[in-house]
Amino acid sequence: MTRTVIRGGLVITAAEEMPADVLIEGEQVVALASTGSDVADGWTADRVIDATGQYVIPGGVDAHTHMQLPFGGTEASDTFETGTRAAAFGGTTTIVDFAVQSVGSSLRAGLDAWHEKAAGVCAIDYAFHMILGDVNEASLKEMDLLVGEGVTSFKLFMAYPGVFYSDDGQILRAMQRGADNGGLIMMHAENGIAIDVLVEQALAAGKTDPRYHGEVRRELLEAEATHRAIKLAQVAGAPLYVVHVSAASAVAELAKARDEGLPVFGETCPQYLYLSTDNLAEPGFEGAKYVCSTPLRPREHQAALWRGLRTNDLQVVSTDHCPFCFVGQKDLGRGDFSKIPNGLPGVENRMDLLHQAVVEGKLTRRRWIEIACATPARMFGLYPRKGTIAPGADADLVVYDPNAVQTVSAATHHMNVDYSAYEGRQLTGKARTVLSRGTVVVDGDVYLGRAGHGRYQPRSTCQYL
Amino acid sequence: MTRTVIRGGLVITAAEEMPADVLIEGEQVVALASTGSDVADGWTADRVIDATGQYVIPGGVDAHTHMQLPFGGTEASDTFETGTRAAAFGGTTTIVDFAVQSVGSSLRAGLDAWHEKAAGVCAIDYAFHMILGDVNEASLKEMDLLVGEGVTSFKLFMAYPGVFYSDDGQILRAMQRGADNGGLIMMHAENGIAIDVLVEQALAAGKTDPRYHGEVRRELLEAEATHRAIKLAQVAGAPLYVVHVSAASAVAELAKARDEGLPVFGETCPQYLYLSTDNLAEPGFEGAKYVCSTPLRPREHQAALWRGLRTNDLQVVSTDHCPFCFVGQKDLGRGDFSKIPNGLPGVENRMDLLHQAVVEGKLTRRRWIEIACATPARMFGLYPRKGTIAPGADADLVVYDPNAVQTVSAATHHMNVDYSAYEGRQLTGKARTVLSRGTVVVDGDVYLGRAGHGRYQPRSTCQYL
Amino acid sequence: MTRTVIRGGLVITAAEEMPADVLIEGEQVVALASTGSDVADGWTADRVIDATGQYVIPGGVDAHTHMQLPFGGTEASDTFETGTRAAAFGGTTTIVDFAVQSVGSSLRAGLDAWHEKAAGVCAIDYAFHMILGDVNEASLKEMDLLVGEGVTSFKLFMAYPGVFYSDDGQILRAMQRGADNGGLIMMHAENGIAIDVLVEQALAAGKTDPRYHGEVRRELLEAEATHRAIKLAQVAGAPLYVVHVSAASAVAELAKARDEGLPVFGETCPQYLYLSTDNLAEPGFEGAKYVCSTPLRPREHQAALWRGLRTNDLQVVSTDHCPFCFVGQKDLGRGDFSKIPNGLPGVENRMDLLHQAVVEGKLTRRRWIEIACATPARMFGLYPRKGTIAPGADADLVVYDPNAVQTVSAATHHMNVDYSAYEGRQLTGKARTVLSRGTVVVDGDVYLGRAGHGRYQPRSTCQYL
Amino acid sequence: MTRTVIRGGLVITAAEEMPADVLIEGEQVVALASTGSDVADGWTADRVIDATGQYVIPGGVDAHTHMQLPFGGTEASDTFETGTRAAAFGGTTTIVDFAVQSVGSSLRAGLDAWHEKAAGVCAIDYAFHMILGDVNEASLKEMDLLVGEGVTSFKLFMAYPGVFYSDDGQILRAMQRGADNGGLIMMHAENGIAIDVLVEQALAAGKTDPRYHGEVRRELLEAEATHRAIKLAQVAGAPLYVVHVSAASAVAELAKARDEGLPVFGETCPQYLYLSTDNLAEPGFEGAKYVCSTPLRPREHQAALWRGLRTNDLQVVSTDHCPFCFVGQKDLGRGDFSKIPNGLPGVENRMDLLHQAVVEGKLTRRRWIEIACATPARMFGLYPRKGTIAPGADADLVVYDPNAVQTVSAATHHMNVDYSAYEGRQLTGKARTVLSRGTVVVDGDVYLGRAGHGRYQPRSTCQYL
Repeated sequence: MTRTVIRGGLVITAAEEMPADVLIEGEQVVALASTGSDVADGWTADRVIDATGQYVIPGGVDAHTHMQLPFGGTEASDTFETGTRAAAFGGTTTIVDFAVQSVGSSLRAGLDAWHEKAAGVCAIDYAFHMILGDVNEASLKEMDLLVGEGVTSFKLFMAYPGVFYSDDGQILRAMQRGADNGGLIMMHAENGIAIDVLVEQALAAGKTDPRYHGEVRRELLEAEATHRAIKLAQVAGAPLYVVHVSAASAVAELAKARDEGLPVFGETCPQYLYLSTDNLAEPGFEGAKYVCSTPLRPREHQAALWRGLRTNDLQVVSTDHCPFCFVGQKDLGRGDFSKIPNGLPGVENRMDLLHQAVVEGKLTRRRWIEIACATPARMFGLYPRKGTIAPGADADLVVYDPNAVQTVSAATHHMNVDYSAYEGRQLTGKARTVLSRGTVVVDGDVYLGRAGHGRYQPRSTCQYL
Repeated sequence: MTRTVIRGGLVITAAEEMPADVLIEGEQVVALASTGSDVADGWTADRVIDATGQYVIPGGVDAHTHMQLPFGGTEASDTFETGTRAAAFGGTTTIVDFAVQSVGSSLRAGLDAWHEKAAGVCAIDYAFHMILGDVNEASLKEMDLLVGEGVTSFKLFMAYPGVFYSDDGQILRAMQRGADNGGLIMMHAENGIAIDVLVEQALAAGKTDPRYHGEVRRELLEAEATHRAIKLAQVAGAPLYVVHVSAASAVAELAKARDEGLPVFGETCPQYLYLSTDNLAEPGFEGAKYVCSTPLRPREHQAALWRGLRTNDLQVVSTDHCPFCFVGQKDLGRGDFSKIPNGLPGVENRMDLLHQAVVEGKLTRRRWIEIACATPARMFGLYPRKGTIAPGADADLVVYDPNAVQTVSAATHHMNVDYSAYEGRQLTGKARTVLSRGTVVVDGDVYLGRAGHGRYQPRSTCQYL
Repeated sequence: MTRTVIRGGLVITAAEEMPADVLIEGEQVVALASTGSDVADGWTADRVIDATGQYVIPGGVDAHTHMQLPFGGTEASDTFETGTRAAAFGGTTTIVDFAVQSVGSSLRAGLDAWHEKAAGVCAIDYAFHMILGDVNEASLKEMDLLVGEGVTSFKLFMAYPGVFYSDDGQILRAMQRGADNGGLIMMHAENGIAIDVLVEQALAAGKTDPRYHGEVRRELLEAEATHRAIKLAQVAGAPLYVVHVSAASAVAELAKARDEGLPVFGETCPQYLYLSTDNLAEPGFEGAKYVCSTPLRPREHQAALWRGLRTNDLQVVSTDHCPFCFVGQKDLGRGDFSKIPNGLPGVENRMDLLHQAVVEGKLTRRRWIEIACATPARMFGLYPRKGTIAPGADADLVVYDPNAVQTVSAATHHMNVDYSAYEGRQLTGKARTVLSRGTVVVDGDVYLGRAGHGRYQPRSTCQYL
Repeated sequence: MTRTVIRGGLVITAAEEMPADVLIEGEQVVALASTGSDVADGWTADRVIDATGQYVIPGGVDAHTHMQLPFGGTEASDTFETGTRAAAFGGTTTIVDFAVQSVGSSLRAGLDAWHEKAAGVCAIDYAFHMILGDVNEASLKEMDLLVGEGVTSFKLFMAYPGVFYSDDGQILRAMQRGADNGGLIMMHAENGIAIDVLVEQALAAGKTDPRYHGEVRRELLEAEATHRAIKLAQVAGAPLYVVHVSAASAVAELAKARDEGLPVFGETCPQYLYLSTDNLAEPGFEGAKYVCSTPLRPREHQAALWRGLRTNDLQVVSTDHCPFCFVGQKDLGRGDFSKIPNGLPGVENRMDLLHQAVVEGKLTRRRWIEIACATPARMFGLYPRKGTIAPGADADLVVYDPNAVQTVSAATHHMNVDYSAYEGRQLTGKARTVLSRGTVVVDGDVYLGRAGHGRYQPRSTCQYL
């Protein structure tokens, strides 16, 4: 068994900051010891990584990605191979992607298809949520089976009628089933039925530019759907995880529910923390780069999101990584914003964008690790293998240079997409060395991993219940 | 022109209490003068009504009745003739009934049908709301026409999928149209899609008794729908009137919206103020008598409703009068509570049940008149003809004996239904003499009116906007 | 007995708008009749006032004035004579002024002193509240006596330590006593103990200009005191009336309490609706003209106050009329804002400033009369004599020209003060003829009244309890 | 340096649960390694503690004790020697006690006096908060010095006028100073001025039994003071820590403030979680045993406190340990509840009472450690020495038997007080072996420590800011 020691760094977890050496045997962390202690110094190793002046953090867990997702007549531009490699470069060592059940098809068929896409090509470990595209008696029964094989969370959509949309009865049934079998319902909370009316009216009025995407998907309709999902979960006696929260008023709904002690959770994404309707309104067709749903909101919402992350009314930051190239994909929606494929690239940028918030005093270092690594791991049943640094955990580790300065750019990123949503933004902090289960997969700018190193991770159920 | 003077009573309106004589010429009030003043004493009249020791109040305005409503394979048991006569006995001199647009049919056809039912048979004045059973391009256009002819309010249902149900897109469109043409949207706010799942599950579990009607129509699902309707109205920039509010948490949603200054209104009904799930749980099939939707709630909700009436978070008390005989109608639902026709009789009891609250200190006398007469008249564009006593108003007046003691009973009531929801209840206060546009239609226990006296009242738009 | 008829106007009360003639006999209204009816036309009178095209409204009731109030080493510049005459010009026919109990003195002594100031000099009717400057066993007992003689409301201060300040124990005791004897506690709600620390620190830092008056009297400290007063009232089981509410967050505290059904009431003043910290920051020493407590707030608070008036979270608009001349009085505070006498003139402007809100669509006509006439009369036990137009009410009436355009100015106003807080402001609407108990006291720009016409009005207790 | 290894236990911290061996050198933890790994097995040690089947947890941090506190003419019955020994038996290895500044005296004098009481007699480590009994210019200046020497938190009282009470101005000044020097203000939040009125009235009415202690200290007056303290902290720009929260409505105030992102913290105590006004109402004079302030509340408040602990609206559970013997101390208040010394024993029971909540499913194991060890350590600047198990931390460790069953009793406890507030209560879970800085001080029922082992711990400032 290969022995690796990471020496001299500041080990940061969701709860601790300690100057400690980390000993890895094979794929796991086996010990931590005070740097400079006889015990630590006595460790022999095949490989020693010097982390002096660096942070040693758990690899990131991105609980919301869409590699190769078919959407709007095209497909997300990152494959599991390119997407997971980019993730590794960004210090993320686990993704949880969404397998899709199509209307008329089974969960099994959808899950198998996604297994096939990912098998043998991933740079880092991966797991699956399941999108319930067609809730019916058969698919409800299949939920139990999937929970049994480690797919323990199920996404429903209150938006996209005719595609992924479930009505309130379907939602209630799925939540009831989840309450029984331990499956956690994840919700895209927007009132899509009402939004589609506004979309139709906007287009009829000649409002076709990307910025109208942000206008018709009204904040009130995100807050409304969030409230409704919470009430349905209450009726079902089920927990709820709301994905990609972008509106201040939706955060308020979550906060209210949590004050009442309800098991309600919320996720936001870097794009909502850093970008705004200003980007959607960029001239020409540039706004299309920022079209995603829930949409970007006016800048003043950002403060509410940061506050929600600090007060734990929001618990997780994922990326909703779903890249479409500007040329050839985003431009399907020229002249009709509703045809722009929804989604942004981001899996490579998340850890750094959040570290930037540490630099700017918006988050503590431990909270950074908590929302980006520890909580997503616990939320989706990957802990204690993932999300922390402790004896027994997988050796998914990042030696992180808190002082490195980088400029984000499509010219240098590793995602398979022709633009960056953060082009030109200067960030302080960067992953220097990335280990996945004990193997160095990225060292500086060099990729040392291989397609297929990443392994499927069956998950236990949510650990907050 | 016939001249009538009502002498010596305490005239009570929504705002005043004054010992005054009232002079009526023809169909209208022309003057009020201090009792005992030379002016008053100088009035000569064809008829003098002595109101010494009595209240003189505006005739009641019941803004929510369903005469002859087809429902669940049967029809509400009161015709416009029997129902309006019963209303008159109870001190109510105007009803606003609901014409129905059926799926696939036009508003015009529905309205014409209701006009036909009511024409020439009513004891008191009447007007119509319109139920929008099928929101589409054509019916949206028809809304404008109806507003023009005095049908200025439109009811939508978030419940009863497959019958009256509108989805959120239809609701939004109707609200937008109402915002333009002045039509007020009235909402049955229950999440019927979710409720129907619970109904199906309850029946499948053998829970068929009437009390399960109250259990499956969860309070949370009334509060949720109320919240959703408010948000949709906000998106549409439209006002909203929520009918038959029964849940404390729904009142809270209204209160919150009103604190924000939104034009949101709420109505409750006597059955929610006086009855409860205890009645639904009465042994045998007796509970069926109390099946209506929204359903009766546990007793502790009553305090919130009374408080809402005092704080003006609820503005109107209507009856939702929709009687079905216990024998032959309610018993359609033996063995399956979902087949019990929904509705209760009440048009005759409202004024007295609310006066009882005055006796018990829950309401002031003026607030009694406000919620039962003045506000419904203003809300639905009938003021200043209806709802008050003032020079120029219609002489719809009630000489009300505040000390009369009565026992409510199907044996003595005038509604065409074989039971009373308040059987045996003793109330203090009773209409003694009832005038409709200057004509005495009820005197003591004697009906002096005639079918066809009542006239259709085209309405202006809501006067609170 | 003199008979007067006011013909052809639109009579407006808190609840009605009716084209009606008003018949006055002696000091009281005896009848209303439809304009043009035989009844009305048959009325003979000593004097006929033509109100065609005009409003006929109840005379205003200003429930918060401080004529000749000693404050900060000087005295408010309006005497009861000049102040009530100015009030009459502005369409106000009743004031409720504050008698003051000084520390170490009795209520009786204070009340007697104020009776002496007002006796024989007032142009319009007047009544008294009592300021409790020294709550102790003796003064608590005296409260009962005063209630008996028509002084049924008592003001306490959470501000001005060493002058009017009562601590929470004194407040609680006075509230308990009021709960017993029917006296209504009126509260100046600002945390004066904390404010005085900030005043001292501001002065020590050289911040001596008038605008610092607004900065140190922090909004949070008004909201805090409002919340505290509500909780103390709850403990005492007593109602509460909060005077001169200026902060949006204080309105929110009132709204919350009222949603819970607590008997809590709030008053604001025209200065908070129309002026702001912008005025306090006027260059030179001009800001001193706007120094009052609670202080003017930033402009964005105004919307919350207007909304509170519409939602009935605020019920009354009074003036807190307490004028000090700019020259010789306000300038006592040059170089030390804390020495500027607190108070603004306004008794003459209130009715017009509120009518301007009608013109601008912020209030309905009836709500204008409700907050300016009817509610203050009911709140302080003057109804049905004051605040409405009905048979039996005092003939305190204003023929109001809704189209008259005026420019407010110290050059033309009748208050005894050398500046106007609204100098140069153009308003639409003006009292044309003012009657006090049947006597015309103002006609156009001419004063027809006399010192001493105004009579002391003993009051019953609050009519909202 | 002595080497100790704790083998085979489940190490639990606020964030992790890991089967790991713990290596201690001298007074500190130096390493953790997976149980059974070569690394761990390779560790040699002077002493091996077998923790198989046990938890290994950080020693408890009790942030609120009052050893030897003079109160009401007597003195808390535990000395630093007896109290800290009892704490050790209960698995608590650090206390933060309150030094007292008396009126007219300096902080220095108070702190010196407390140092003298504690020096050389403590069984475990200790630190000090400072009670500000007399806020004035001199004491405000002394705050800076104390922060410099590790006394970084200052307690103020809104209750106990004439003893510890500070008025709102003093509170504001102290908060402002704390905002500057890093000192955290801890607040006893009850409106003592109002309470004293109710106390006087209760005694005057012959209500002298202990249960009236709970009645006069009204819940509303705790919520009010909590709200006021929050607002004063907002004005000062300072954080706030509210001690011994007992009322559901006070938790709601904290939750609201925290939702807004304010740095507001709350502590509750085991007595509020397990006892109630039922205990205060025990017959005879037994209720006196449960007299403390804030008082015990009706049972239904307990659910809100547990929920607050789960939602992190409450962050810390301390004991407010302040024991008075029933005989000779509590009985000072026979015939006058206001003379009963306020306080309960509890320092020995806290860890076990909270573990009982783990057993009952109210808390997770990690949350147990968080509220009892990690958060108090961080809150009061003792982390990373105290509150966790990690390389570099002090070896304050407890081998905890989660299955041991004990019956709480004064007959067996080690606190110097003649009764137990939890007499006869059966608990599951008990400290088996307790280490303080690497030294075993308790093993089973045997005390192996010594007076004077415990060392004073200067503290850094609050680590949540």
